[in-house]
Amino acid sequence: MTSQTASSRPFVAAVDWGTTSLRVWLLDETGQVLSETRSDQGMAKLSRGEFGAVLERELAALRAPSGLPAMICGMAGARQGWKEIRYLEVPVAVDAILEAATPVEAAARPVWILPGLCQRAPVADVMRGEETQIAGAVARFAAGDYLLCLPGTHSKWVQVKDATVTGFRTFLTGEMFSLLCEHSILRHSVGSSRQADGQSPVFRERLRTVLENPSALPSSLFSIRAEGLLGEFPPDAAAAALSGYLIGAEIAGARSQFATAGNEVILIASGGLADLYSAALEEAGMTTTVIDAETAVRTALFEAARFKLRGS
Amino acid sequence: MTSQTASSRPFVAAVDWGTTSLRVWLLDETGQVLSETRSDQGMAKLSRGEFGAVLERELAALRAPSGLPAMICGMAGARQGWKEIRYLEVPVAVDAILEAATPVEAAARPVWILPGLCQRAPVADVMRGEETQIAGAVARFAAGDYLLCLPGTHSKWVQVKDATVTGFRTFLTGEMFSLLCEHSILRHSVGSSRQADGQSPVFRERLRTVLENPSALPSSLFSIRAEGLLGEFPPDAAAAALSGYLIGAEIAGARSQFATAGNEVILIASGGLADLYSAALEEAGMTTTVIDAETAVRTALFEAARFKLRGS
Repeated sequence: MTSQTASSRPFVAAVDWGTTSLRVWLLDETGQVLSETRSDQGMAKLSRGEFGAVLERELAALRAPSGLPAMICGMAGARQGWKEIRYLEVPVAVDAILEAATPVEAAARPVWILPGLCQRAPVADVMRGEETQIAGAVARFAAGDYLLCLPGTHSKWVQVKDATVTGFRTFLTGEMFSLLCEHSILRHSVGSSRQADGQSPVFRERLRTVLENPSALPSSLFSIRAEGLLGEFPPDAAAAALSGYLIGAEIAGARSQFATAGNEVILIASGGLADLYSAALEEAGMTTTVIDAETAVRTALFEAARFKLRGS
Repeated sequence: MTSQTASSRPFVAAVDWGTTSLRVWLLDETGQVLSETRSDQGMAKLSRGEFGAVLERELAALRAPSGLPAMICGMAGARQGWKEIRYLEVPVAVDAILEAATPVEAAARPVWILPGLCQRAPVADVMRGEETQIAGAVARFAAGDYLLCLPGTHSKWVQVKDATVTGFRTFLTGEMFSLLCEHSILRHSVGSSRQADGQSPVFRERLRTVLENPSALPSSLFSIRAEGLLGEFPPDAAAAALSGYLIGAEIAGARSQFATAGNEVILIASGGLADLYSAALEEAGMTTTVIDAETAVRTALFEAARFKLRGS
């Protein structure tokens, strides 16, 4: 999918290269989007030698000038990516992440890849791609303590103090939901239903169950199957219950591990996931500021390019 | 697999018909095993019309006399089984379970199937097969309160008071372990390793982590992957960690939901699973009496047959 939205001169190609998707935006010198493209050419489909050609193909589709620099974040920097970029270890200042973009020498144009983050204690953890969203979001806030939530296949909860990432945790919430829906005994209960609605009373009730008693998670999962065997429990309700239990466990886990300054959370998400987590966090009694995930990543890629290209 | 071990006269065929396996024992009038056979002809492989023929084939292999009665427990009584036998609802006396065996009229010999149990509150739950193991185990104990643990794909924890099942909970522990090993991001960490050793320091340490803070479960899972990316974490250690986290969550969940009279648990299990859970329960500070699961189910099937055939 390609679209042209303006005609001023491109300054940089901003690239978010995930496990299963690739997004490219051409940005002008003020950071405005000139054109964009999205494809399924994520890291999982590519061998190391293919990244360069795939990027050139996408940029050709956007009619990007040869020599236009590209700033990349995400799995292109993983061990199985284009070039492995070492993790920065927390605590790390957001500016230091953006300044640590590393050049890919053999590319057909100037190309940099941003590093992911790692944490060794109190629990080992890693991220690649989310650090750039975080940098984009944090740019909007003054000094202070923030708790950030980036929901998804592997949800991240991140503590930021005075524009420094101090710690984070990954939750397998989205992956667990898919696995249980597709491969477990619960597949009989949820059928083909995959969408949970944050306004659903079942979603909110089950969320509270695990929020109030996190140790109830493992036995609550099977109750979804039992309810269907003992009475009526339609697939939509079963999927809402499953989602409620898993997101409830995620919020309970994050709360027990991070001080939540004033019970406020910055939610970095888009679309249906933003709505679902907003509802969940509200049910948990937390106040939420939503920041669009795509806007955040684009903002930070632009800032990283400015560091490299203008030194500012 | 068929074996003959004695020559006295068979009294009943005791049959444990699970989702994926079928076990048949010929028992004499004292309950001793005369011969036995095991196969993979579980419910999941069979349509309703096939159960009778499969049973006759297994009994023929054991040279069982025509007309020898068969007492069955497990998934043969499920909706997708030979004949649906309605669940008994807890609280229910163990004797009442055994007396509730229901005849299958169209069978080639006298055949009964035992009912499963259901619970509607505080949480919906069901079992089929474990109730018979429970009946066999409880027969060994005097009146009093007991907490039983039956580990497996769907682990059951069961409260028994004065030979009455008062409540239970199912945990997806074994199924979750398999799903995460085979389909999740953790498959890169555990490789082909599937066995956890209860004596492994990693197993015990990770078990304690979740036991002490059950809300740490969801984020602990991803830490297994991160440890491998950030350093050495061999597949056996990763599998032990995963098993420790999941069994820790199971024990924490069971503890929060049942009063554990004197912190004692009756563990109904066999082989490696008995060893693993014994180690886990010991690490959790609980004292354990192990009852062999096969002996328990056979004992109860024999008792149920005595009720029907002798009225005693």
